[in-house]
Amino acid sequence: MLPEGMVYLDGNSLGPMPKVVPDHLSGMLTDEWGALLIKGWNAAGWMEQPTRVGDLVGRLIGAPGGSVVMGDTLSIKVYQGVAAGLKMRPERRVILSDTGNFPTDLYMVEGLINTLDQGYELRTVAPEEVAGAITQEVAVVMLTQVDYRTGRMHDMAAITAQAHAQGAVMLWDLAHSAGAVPVDLAGSNAEMAVGCTYKYLNGGPGAPAFIYVRPDLADTVEPALSGWLGHSAPFDFALHYAPGGGIERMRVGTPPVMQMSALEAALRLWDDVDMDALRAASIALQEQFIEEVEARIPALDLVSPRDPNVRGSQVSFRFEHGYAAMQALIAQDVIGDFRAPDIMRFGFTPLYIDAHDVRIAVDRLVKVMDEKLWDDPKYRMRGRVT
Amino acid sequence: MLPEGMVYLDGNSLGPMPKVVPDHLSGMLTDEWGALLIKGWNAAGWMEQPTRVGDLVGRLIGAPGGSVVMGDTLSIKVYQGVAAGLKMRPERRVILSDTGNFPTDLYMVEGLINTLDQGYELRTVAPEEVAGAITQEVAVVMLTQVDYRTGRMHDMAAITAQAHAQGAVMLWDLAHSAGAVPVDLAGSNAEMAVGCTYKYLNGGPGAPAFIYVRPDLADTVEPALSGWLGHSAPFDFALHYAPGGGIERMRVGTPPVMQMSALEAALRLWDDVDMDALRAASIALQEQFIEEVEARIPALDLVSPRDPNVRGSQVSFRFEHGYAAMQALIAQDVIGDFRAPDIMRFGFTPLYIDAHDVRIAVDRLVKVMDEKLWDDPKYRMRGRVT
Repeated sequence: MLPEGMVYLDGNSLGPMPKVVPDHLSGMLTDEWGALLIKGWNAAGWMEQPTRVGDLVGRLIGAPGGSVVMGDTLSIKVYQGVAAGLKMRPERRVILSDTGNFPTDLYMVEGLINTLDQGYELRTVAPEEVAGAITQEVAVVMLTQVDYRTGRMHDMAAITAQAHAQGAVMLWDLAHSAGAVPVDLAGSNAEMAVGCTYKYLNGGPGAPAFIYVRPDLADTVEPALSGWLGHSAPFDFALHYAPGGGIERMRVGTPPVMQMSALEAALRLWDDVDMDALRAASIALQEQFIEEVEARIPALDLVSPRDPNVRGSQVSFRFEHGYAAMQALIAQDVIGDFRAPDIMRFGFTPLYIDAHDVRIAVDRLVKVMDEKLWDDPKYRMRGRVT
Repeated sequence: MLPEGMVYLDGNSLGPMPKVVPDHLSGMLTDEWGALLIKGWNAAGWMEQPTRVGDLVGRLIGAPGGSVVMGDTLSIKVYQGVAAGLKMRPERRVILSDTGNFPTDLYMVEGLINTLDQGYELRTVAPEEVAGAITQEVAVVMLTQVDYRTGRMHDMAAITAQAHAQGAVMLWDLAHSAGAVPVDLAGSNAEMAVGCTYKYLNGGPGAPAFIYVRPDLADTVEPALSGWLGHSAPFDFALHYAPGGGIERMRVGTPPVMQMSALEAALRLWDDVDMDALRAASIALQEQFIEEVEARIPALDLVSPRDPNVRGSQVSFRFEHGYAAMQALIAQDVIGDFRAPDIMRFGFTPLYIDAHDVRIAVDRLVKVMDEKLWDDPKYRMRGRVT
């Protein structure tokens, strides 16, 4: 569902609402919460939903059935993953990441380190220096595959192999990958991965996150966030925690059933999507956008990689007045977003964006630049970032 | 919204759906997510919703405006609270709780202790022994005010004073208190409180949790779960965490906007509810239930306190075949629940339960007992607990 006339190039931030969702959620409210009440946990399958939906996500990221579970937010899942990784390498004290990681990933590690207070270090290097920085001091390598600013993509298999060569645990954040690019998580052999579902997967604002643990580790991984729904027998109400079998132990508290239900409906749309075909369509749209922008607007500098094979499903340009220019463009009903200090970011999502949309977007961007609409004080005043 | 003929005495587990919710959520989906997309964060007020809704909860638990924020699950909020409490008393190593605490609270502390690996101890005593067990070794006293099994209620002000006399930090779990009994959180002087909103507050399955930090501590409390939405300037995307002012720093990741919206609609119903009047009505229903059950069903033993002043908004009876008896009663459309090993639990919620419902419930319970319906194998077979 997209408003008439809008070109929405921000599905990498919040995906639009699949048309099936309102009716689905209305039915869930009336037929499940309303009619079943507490019985919904069994009768409507709420209890199994985090693993059932996890399998739908797993299919899109190359994870085998039963290896992904949904819940909480991506920030919480990052914390779970890093804490679990540190337990796997108790003698090491470094978490390695890069400056292209989404800040909350870094913040959550800072919080964990501060809580542990045992000499842990978050070491953050430039994205292109990651491979060389993986040493035997490193307990966990934590990276987001696709850079949220530039779209630059890490080589998951190669970096994971380098991490393993140095005895480090690999944790991937797939926030900008899931539903955007084909991911072969199992093939990468990474120990863990996390991600969110409100971007390319269109799960809605605040849709639950996911966590993957490699199946051979799922029965031994130590859950720092040991909540009752990860217990081996939650309804025994025992006084002590005993982790459940497999990925279930990465569950924490009561799952957000309504969000989970909306997400499940949104994910059913992916049943017939071929990720390789989607990727090819995404690259075609991006190439068209880059070519037209560079031809018509020399003031914008491409900051995304020029090689589409190392770029996710977004294109970013640098412009000194990027904030105001993006506000002006949004006023023209072309929705991208801005990332400090000067990046204009455009997401390409072939499920609902086509070549015609790209042409309209470029035309309106040309208008913003040619007519210097960004120079209008109403666009230059920084309010809340959209 | 309650199904015709059902007597729902399980609002202490999952509250029923307020009739306003489906239309409200349908409007939210169409007018906010669907029409505004990413702009919803500002234009629809999603960004401020966790504190705006926090104030609605705060009013019901005696917390001043701006001291409560919503998000995550109760398990996560317990972890945040305990971790923050330990930072306030770095020289102490004991977290004190009681065996009447809901297990996930204990499990989350076990997970935290295991993660810290620094000689912390979770000391768990019987509920009636808590006061005497608060010593100067104790960093944090963590208690649930109302016992989830028996409804026994701790004296918040007295125990908090005892904790403070020994230099300990007090953390209350108000899961079975919020919307059930009048709470004077500010008056208790406790440092922190947490709770959930899907029980008496009717926020729906998986509704977000809340956390309160006493205002004088809110600018110094250290957030272990330091997510980007608790950052002082989330949209600067700085590489290092800097906690936001006040209660905002207890936010973690992207809030579950749909759940939050349903909860907000549900909470608006409380605008005109007087908590003292509600409490009086709850006690009257409970007294009626106890009197009629004891008069007519001698096989059931009251395990809740007889004094209504130290009992929350539920009544529990012990019966050897409690599991099967509860299943049989549910089959009669009287919904209570069972808690291991032998407790039949009944919640009383005057917003939608009245004296007539109580009479029907007792009549059907009498039928279950007189006709030994609990002896039917179909009720005795333990499947998933409802």
